[in-house]
Amino acid sequence: MNERLNRLDTSMQEMGLEALIITDPKHVYYLTGFASDPHERFLGLALRQGEEPVLIVPALDAEAALAASSVQNIITHSDTDHPYNLLKEHLKGTITSLGIEKNQLTVSRFELLQASLEAQSYQDIGPVLQSLRVQKTPEEVIRMKHAIHLIEEVLRQGLTRVQVGVTEIELVAELEYLMKKLGADGPSFDTMVLSGSNTALPHGVPGQRKIQNGDLLMFDMGVFANGYASDITRTFAVGNINKEQSTIYNTVLEANLQGIQSIRPGVTLASVDQAARSVIERAGYGPQFMHRLGHGLGMDVHEYPSIHGNNLDLVQSGMVFTVEPGIYVPGLGGVRIEDDIVVTEDGVEVLTSFPKELTIVG
Amino acid sequence: MNERLNRLDTSMQEMGLEALIITDPKHVYYLTGFASDPHERFLGLALRQGEEPVLIVPALDAEAALAASSVQNIITHSDTDHPYNLLKEHLKGTITSLGIEKNQLTVSRFELLQASLEAQSYQDIGPVLQSLRVQKTPEEVIRMKHAIHLIEEVLRQGLTRVQVGVTEIELVAELEYLMKKLGADGPSFDTMVLSGSNTALPHGVPGQRKIQNGDLLMFDMGVFANGYASDITRTFAVGNINKEQSTIYNTVLEANLQGIQSIRPGVTLASVDQAARSVIERAGYGPQFMHRLGHGLGMDVHEYPSIHGNNLDLVQSGMVFTVEPGIYVPGLGGVRIEDDIVVTEDGVEVLTSFPKELTIVG
Repeated sequence: MNERLNRLDTSMQEMGLEALIITDPKHVYYLTGFASDPHERFLGLALRQGEEPVLIVPALDAEAALAASSVQNIITHSDTDHPYNLLKEHLKGTITSLGIEKNQLTVSRFELLQASLEAQSYQDIGPVLQSLRVQKTPEEVIRMKHAIHLIEEVLRQGLTRVQVGVTEIELVAELEYLMKKLGADGPSFDTMVLSGSNTALPHGVPGQRKIQNGDLLMFDMGVFANGYASDITRTFAVGNINKEQSTIYNTVLEANLQGIQSIRPGVTLASVDQAARSVIERAGYGPQFMHRLGHGLGMDVHEYPSIHGNNLDLVQSGMVFTVEPGIYVPGLGGVRIEDDIVVTEDGVEVLTSFPKELTIVG
Repeated sequence: MNERLNRLDTSMQEMGLEALIITDPKHVYYLTGFASDPHERFLGLALRQGEEPVLIVPALDAEAALAASSVQNIITHSDTDHPYNLLKEHLKGTITSLGIEKNQLTVSRFELLQASLEAQSYQDIGPVLQSLRVQKTPEEVIRMKHAIHLIEEVLRQGLTRVQVGVTEIELVAELEYLMKKLGADGPSFDTMVLSGSNTALPHGVPGQRKIQNGDLLMFDMGVFANGYASDITRTFAVGNINKEQSTIYNTVLEANLQGIQSIRPGVTLASVDQAARSVIERAGYGPQFMHRLGHGLGMDVHEYPSIHGNNLDLVQSGMVFTVEPGIYVPGLGGVRIEDDIVVTEDGVEVLTSFPKELTIVG
């Protein structure tokens, strides 16, 4: 059994569970290396104390599962089989307490599971998986560096297409084409290119606006590659921007740097948010920074932890999250600078390397 | 109350439910006109027999809900409220039997709901919503025609970019750019452009292959617009194709036409599949048509009903589904021709209008 399955096994014992069933395809991938989208069909990884884990997959995924999964005890089911009964056959004996993913399992599926397995109680193992996932392994960090490398290359090549007159959505189309061309699985969220006054909208949608001289130009984008997400924001100046635009740029950059500098194991996530936010507040733009500082990043583009002023959870080594302060001034425009970082044993490593000093493009 | 809410109210009485709660954002949209993505926050439409429906939305969506929803009895909750307790306050009195969407509700949310509402039993209202949705209203058909119009215009404009040497993913980028430019909300699924031998893969992924003379060239794509999906496949010839390629093209076209011609209320869905499939079988390509004939289309790009040989459900007027026979010959290539149709009182109306005769492009 691999390290992750071992840790899950330990948690199972600590929680007094005889068995557990993982049904989130992302978690099956995380624990076995087998990635799939089973759509309506049943996919599950079953663990019972003291026994080999069993992977239950739709028949048409059998070959792919055998090739990719570290769990080689694989049972397949066709569309006419009842997968929950198969599960019961292989989890022999009565089960007093069964672990399930309550945030992922629907009531319909839970009822089928209950009818077949007849456990006495069902406990949520979601928090266990969350705590496993929050601590990225060196191998995961390598994958994330690759996803980050790809998106930074997309940005580098995409910037050569920026010129006055091109529209936001033309740039989005170009960037998403580059993602595919460079080998990413796809965007990790809707690619955002905003220009001019649109940059003042933290969640604006790219449209037909043409890029003009004097614009701020914001890119917020990422890719999925090998199951992991990247997420970066950079803001540029098109030609000459005015003094207040430069001021907010430099304030956001300083906030980004101060936020990053404050990160080390043992401090609260709230203190990291505060380190960045206080720079912006001191500059008088506190109310114009109306979102959290960042979010966890990994197999999901938004995952635990959330970096905000009320989160008193502690920074742990192995956490990967974004640091993305912003200032949004209606009419004038907005600036956001977002990096992805990994917490090390004694500090922080910044995974994104795209230059951050104010750069003129177009 | 609108017609859909009335029909839901009738079902609620027939099922002996005192109340029901709709939690699928798509169904809240379907029943109230308010579209939103609440992410982790609670969104619910609560109906109790003899009372006004209540819409419970996150506080930050209050304005949007008030503007869009036909249900104007709106309760908002902030991130520190407990939405299930709010629900309890507004569904006064004890509830013996409560209707919920078991296919949508997670176990976590169901447990919160149970703890607050303490109903004695919970019944699944998923099938009721499915039966409502399957019968499209004239207004829904108009929306779907718009989504179809958009994707056909994308195809028309996209075809002008086809030439020998251009890659599949370059065409995907161009087509997705056109979708946004023409005003679609986005692709309704991953845009598929396959060429040459890649067309023999029913679920191939567009790549770096360059289009060549003698290729079959297949486009399978759709958009979302105003909440509804379109989905069309057309296959073209690049320059001169050979005799067998022409033969499979004409066989698939004939299967498409025969399938469509067989559609009318009261026949089985299996018989529609068979009408198309028998054309392909007679031509000797039965084993090379290894997927179902089609699928329901609406707010989801794949929804009930499934058009396959074992589905003995009956065709009903108001159903919208795809008719998409295909033949896939390894090495030679594949052809698929997909239309979207609506079942009328006495037959069928084909919603897609893009020409289907074999056309040479590039």
